[in-house]
Amino acid sequence: MTKNSANLRVRLPALIFALEVMIIVLYAVFVTYDDHTNALLQTNMTKPMENAVYQDYPFFADIQMMIFIGFGCLLSFFQRYGFGGMVFNFLTATFAIQWAILIQGFFHFYYDGKIHLGVINLINAEFACAVVLISFGAVLGKTSPVQLLVSLFEILFEVCKSCSYLKINDAGGSILIHVFACYFGLGVTFILYRPSLNDGHSKECTSYQSDMLSVLGTLFLWVFWPSFNCALTLRGDDQHRAILHTFIGLSASTLTAFALSAMLNKNGKLSMADVQNVTLAGGVTVGASVDMMITPAAAYALGMLGCTACMLGYKYLSPFLARRLRVQDQCGIHNLHGLTGLISTVAAIYPQLAELQELIPGLKAGLGRTAKEQALYQLAALGSTIALAAVGGMLTGLLLKLPYLASPSDEFCFDDELFFNVPADYNQAPVLLYCATNWNTIALFYVVQHGAVTNTGWELSIHLLSTSVCFA
Amino acid sequence: MTKNSANLRVRLPALIFALEVMIIVLYAVFVTYDDHTNALLQTNMTKPMENAVYQDYPFFADIQMMIFIGFGCLLSFFQRYGFGGMVFNFLTATFAIQWAILIQGFFHFYYDGKIHLGVINLINAEFACAVVLISFGAVLGKTSPVQLLVSLFEILFEVCKSCSYLKINDAGGSILIHVFACYFGLGVTFILYRPSLNDGHSKECTSYQSDMLSVLGTLFLWVFWPSFNCALTLRGDDQHRAILHTFIGLSASTLTAFALSAMLNKNGKLSMADVQNVTLAGGVTVGASVDMMITPAAAYALGMLGCTACMLGYKYLSPFLARRLRVQDQCGIHNLHGLTGLISTVAAIYPQLAELQELIPGLKAGLGRTAKEQALYQLAALGSTIALAAVGGMLTGLLLKLPYLASPSDEFCFDDELFFNVPADYNQAPVLLYCATNWNTIALFYVVQHGAVTNTGWELSIHLLSTSVCFA
Amino acid sequence: MTKNSANLRVRLPALIFALEVMIIVLYAVFVTYDDHTNALLQTNMTKPMENAVYQDYPFFADIQMMIFIGFGCLLSFFQRYGFGGMVFNFLTATFAIQWAILIQGFFHFYYDGKIHLGVINLINAEFACAVVLISFGAVLGKTSPVQLLVSLFEILFEVCKSCSYLKINDAGGSILIHVFACYFGLGVTFILYRPSLNDGHSKECTSYQSDMLSVLGTLFLWVFWPSFNCALTLRGDDQHRAILHTFIGLSASTLTAFALSAMLNKNGKLSMADVQNVTLAGGVTVGASVDMMITPAAAYALGMLGCTACMLGYKYLSPFLARRLRVQDQCGIHNLHGLTGLISTVAAIYPQLAELQELIPGLKAGLGRTAKEQALYQLAALGSTIALAAVGGMLTGLLLKLPYLASPSDEFCFDDELFFNVPADYNQAPVLLYCATNWNTIALFYVVQHGAVTNTGWELSIHLLSTSVCFA
Repeated sequence: MTKNSANLRVRLPALIFALEVMIIVLYAVFVTYDDHTNALLQTNMTKPMENAVYQDYPFFADIQMMIFIGFGCLLSFFQRYGFGGMVFNFLTATFAIQWAILIQGFFHFYYDGKIHLGVINLINAEFACAVVLISFGAVLGKTSPVQLLVSLFEILFEVCKSCSYLKINDAGGSILIHVFACYFGLGVTFILYRPSLNDGHSKECTSYQSDMLSVLGTLFLWVFWPSFNCALTLRGDDQHRAILHTFIGLSASTLTAFALSAMLNKNGKLSMADVQNVTLAGGVTVGASVDMMITPAAAYALGMLGCTACMLGYKYLSPFLARRLRVQDQCGIHNLHGLTGLISTVAAIYPQLAELQELIPGLKAGLGRTAKEQALYQLAALGSTIALAAVGGMLTGLLLKLPYLASPSDEFCFDDELFFNVPADYNQAPVLLYCATNWNTIALFYVVQHGAVTNTGWELSIHLLSTSVCFA
Repeated sequence: MTKNSANLRVRLPALIFALEVMIIVLYAVFVTYDDHTNALLQTNMTKPMENAVYQDYPFFADIQMMIFIGFGCLLSFFQRYGFGGMVFNFLTATFAIQWAILIQGFFHFYYDGKIHLGVINLINAEFACAVVLISFGAVLGKTSPVQLLVSLFEILFEVCKSCSYLKINDAGGSILIHVFACYFGLGVTFILYRPSLNDGHSKECTSYQSDMLSVLGTLFLWVFWPSFNCALTLRGDDQHRAILHTFIGLSASTLTAFALSAMLNKNGKLSMADVQNVTLAGGVTVGASVDMMITPAAAYALGMLGCTACMLGYKYLSPFLARRLRVQDQCGIHNLHGLTGLISTVAAIYPQLAELQELIPGLKAGLGRTAKEQALYQLAALGSTIALAAVGGMLTGLLLKLPYLASPSDEFCFDDELFFNVPADYNQAPVLLYCATNWNTIALFYVVQHGAVTNTGWELSIHLLSTSVCFA
Repeated sequence: MTKNSANLRVRLPALIFALEVMIIVLYAVFVTYDDHTNALLQTNMTKPMENAVYQDYPFFADIQMMIFIGFGCLLSFFQRYGFGGMVFNFLTATFAIQWAILIQGFFHFYYDGKIHLGVINLINAEFACAVVLISFGAVLGKTSPVQLLVSLFEILFEVCKSCSYLKINDAGGSILIHVFACYFGLGVTFILYRPSLNDGHSKECTSYQSDMLSVLGTLFLWVFWPSFNCALTLRGDDQHRAILHTFIGLSASTLTAFALSAMLNKNGKLSMADVQNVTLAGGVTVGASVDMMITPAAAYALGMLGCTACMLGYKYLSPFLARRLRVQDQCGIHNLHGLTGLISTVAAIYPQLAELQELIPGLKAGLGRTAKEQALYQLAALGSTIALAAVGGMLTGLLLKLPYLASPSDEFCFDDELFFNVPADYNQAPVLLYCATNWNTIALFYVVQHGAVTNTGWELSIHLLSTSVCFA
């Protein structure tokens, strides 16, 4: 079943070891401790419990749960790609965070010739990692781990973007994370378009257990999203508002998702894919204004609005993008991150105007902008983010088309057997035994059933087992 | 397979949108920020790290994990009702918390014409939500999501109860949450009695995977129960004792549950249902005295005692209630929450007397009661809670019997296919192929097996596939 | 299917109740509150938020998640021993912590005639519990719960060891937990050697779902390992470094594990067992030096090194130990805890020398040792730990061979059906129906398939169902 062109035996270790050598050399030369991790900088006056780790580590751990457990389970919704979903998420996230520590370290934590490291760096790296994982969703099941590791270039793009001369307000990362990740991922999948997948793929289905595990992932993301949205906001009432608004937004989008799912399905039944994805829309939509005084009712409204856009996207926009624009968005990231991120960014303009005018006018004086100018900068940042992301995504897509990156063929998409040793029950479609008999002779056959039984029959392969058997 | 009377396509969206409109209007008119979330109330003297969010959010997140992940997994023990268990728990909990924020807001957080909102409100709402979810257990698999949303009336009852003029000591919510939820749920299930379910239902069974996921839910509840029991106790040593006692109580009930499970099963084997439910009894039983100086040994004893009562309830009381009193307690909430809650409340009377007499006599002076009077009030509170809960439950049950609430028929209880689009493997009972042959003619049949094979045979449906097949 | 010698109906309750009586008596006589849990010791000057619980409880809860959820899921990788893995882990961990509270209480928290209890005791007990659970991995699937409870003796050994007159530096517990647990477990399994298992066992395989659940357990352990390694280090920058180094070490071992897995498997595919186990090696390997100023690059290197040793152990050393030295290490604990623990301990010697010489020379004056002496003590401690562990393990193994401990026979190893009531789908291998027909008579057989279909056929049992059937 393995095809040589997808064999990882040399390529994956070679790539990983090369990257690790590069990383460890960079660590050895450039990475040292920051003020909160360096024992030499602690004095008799230092109060141990005031170390930044006690403020940072809880949020860091919550986001780790989202990244490795929440995302890992969520992405394992395919019947035969559970290993790929959960485990390639593990690999990609691990590498993305390592690389982000270095890149963000050079751009944001670099002084005295060294990158200074503490848990706060890890939190920032988690946000960069989130960009990668969201984009990953667009090509889930259609790439190899070698291709995924090459995604490091995405982080370079992401960090450059975050250094943009445009100063923007984006506490929950709606522009920098969700919008960028979405259009980057769409850029990649546009280049990696597979025409034969447009009519579906036999393995592009879920199983009862995979749906259960996937919605469990949704619940982890849902529960800890407030930590994600507040981790990089100002301590104190800003973080408190961020937590509150995220909870309200998610809560509203959850109810709305159930309503729309029943409403838009012809038979009035709920769809697990909607519960797995659309319920989360509120967390993205409140993102850009999550620490502002937008009022709880506004957070609720954003949740409902983002959810509606996300659901309509799943039902109508994604099929259109796949059929007409050659954009096969596997997990529907454009709905959950793109549309909602756009709404979030636009919705944040007004509260920002209000904040600038009413709250603490003197605070923004240094930037010398009027409220209108700030709004224009916000929209300009949005537009340039989308453009940069799409271009970056397409360039990365071209890179991923290089040979020797172990890209799966169409037939082996969404199939764990390509890259994993699978257990015996992986292919254990019910094996059906039948016999044909004539007088005393009995011919015993076994028939392997592939796929579910339908009215027109089902795909079988027939194998002769023996030509005589004893009656027990 | 769908029956029109259970079609959600209009009813669920209509109900949800109506509720959401009501909620968002109430939020817009009445809900604002409290002292810790209002940026306008922060001054130069405010210390950001002293914001209440840093004390409240960790407990809030732990309880979220219990509610959405722990309860969600625990309730997915039915072989064919995993979606319903986990996802309807998600929906119900989301709505219950939203509604509780408003109701409790009006009763407890209302001043200057507004409900003042912070994470502390969310914690209180989680407790009200727990009441709803516990009751939900009594009717698991036998209601529609429309009926579940109507459970909001339960919260009205619960909050009214908590405003009772009887002042009682109940840190872990043993009376207000467990006892009330239990008898409310029993009241509901009494009215919604389904005679045909008394001999069991073909889908009222577990699968290997559903048992695994359910016990995983148990473990989440077990690990975070200390956070639940301490979240609303006084900060400092009270919270520390609450955590300690909860851990000890759960630990004791876990060992006892294993012992009793092996002892009370005829074949000496352990029952997964016991591990999923009875191990948790200790967390409830320490509840009413969890922050008092009861001694660690007393917490241990309460764990053993509550577990024993819970197990005996599962083995002997629940079948009796179902057969003789028309109370079909699906998840055995009377054992895990009712009996244990009663023991907890009664057991708390003595320590309370001791506290009043020895610890800080002057503290309770304002209430002007003697110790005996306090004990009588405790018992009166217990009795009135049970009465109010049972009556409230029965009234809610009557409400749920109204038409147009999409109630499942007996045949479609415990069946995800009624309300969800299910994956292809949902009905994939092993398909058995056989043939009958005479001379050269072979008739090929496929037979769908329903349920497990037993000595008397098994339920089959036989379908003719074709009348000739080639030998391979 | 049950064999009398493995019947738990009397033995398990008898043992548990005896232990519980002993525990509760010891609690009643000896266990009281410590300074942070005793209400009588709080004054008007006490600041509630400075109670130790707020520093201790978060780490305690994180490690609880590792123990009950992470370990529980990880150990459920066998196709037919999921219940045993997750649930016996639950039972063993619960009892181990209870017993450790007492034993460690007498050795470390005893004054004024009482054991003083707070959450800090629970954290210490969790570490002792980890020893037991790691050892459990060596005999997974081959013992009864009665035998597991007898493991309490392990804790006695472990605690005695920790009171060793040798003062050693071991923040992450590399010697005291990982090395001791590993060689203790190997000592046990050496005595409990089962020759017939050397060629494998039909149930010693995984299923798709069990592999998914097991890697989910890995992810929980991975995410919270920093909490484990830092919980007992000094507050402040020490804890911050511990968290940082653990994350870096795990991150490095994760990438290395993927590389080596693809490289060392003949077909270049990834093995789920590698992802489940070897990715965690970094957490152990940084353990002994986790709070020191070893530099982030050193943590990275330790992660890569420990992972490589662990992987080579799985591929080459474990089979050798099983075939030649009669050591059947079921979960490969020697690779994940033994080899890595050894590397960790040896690697910690140099940084320790550096610390003693450069950081705070005066601090260690009380011990009166030079740097070289400290290194020699470290190696002596390592050697004596291994010896004591191995001997203790073998003695415990001999104890576990006593009759009446319900030890499973070879045939019923890795089989939940021995100790649990299993659901109907447990044995539901595809049931194959066939018929033989002659003229009008049709004989209907059902055939139960055991195991997967291979080219040489498969194991069947044939049962006559009836001798005539109607054509539908």
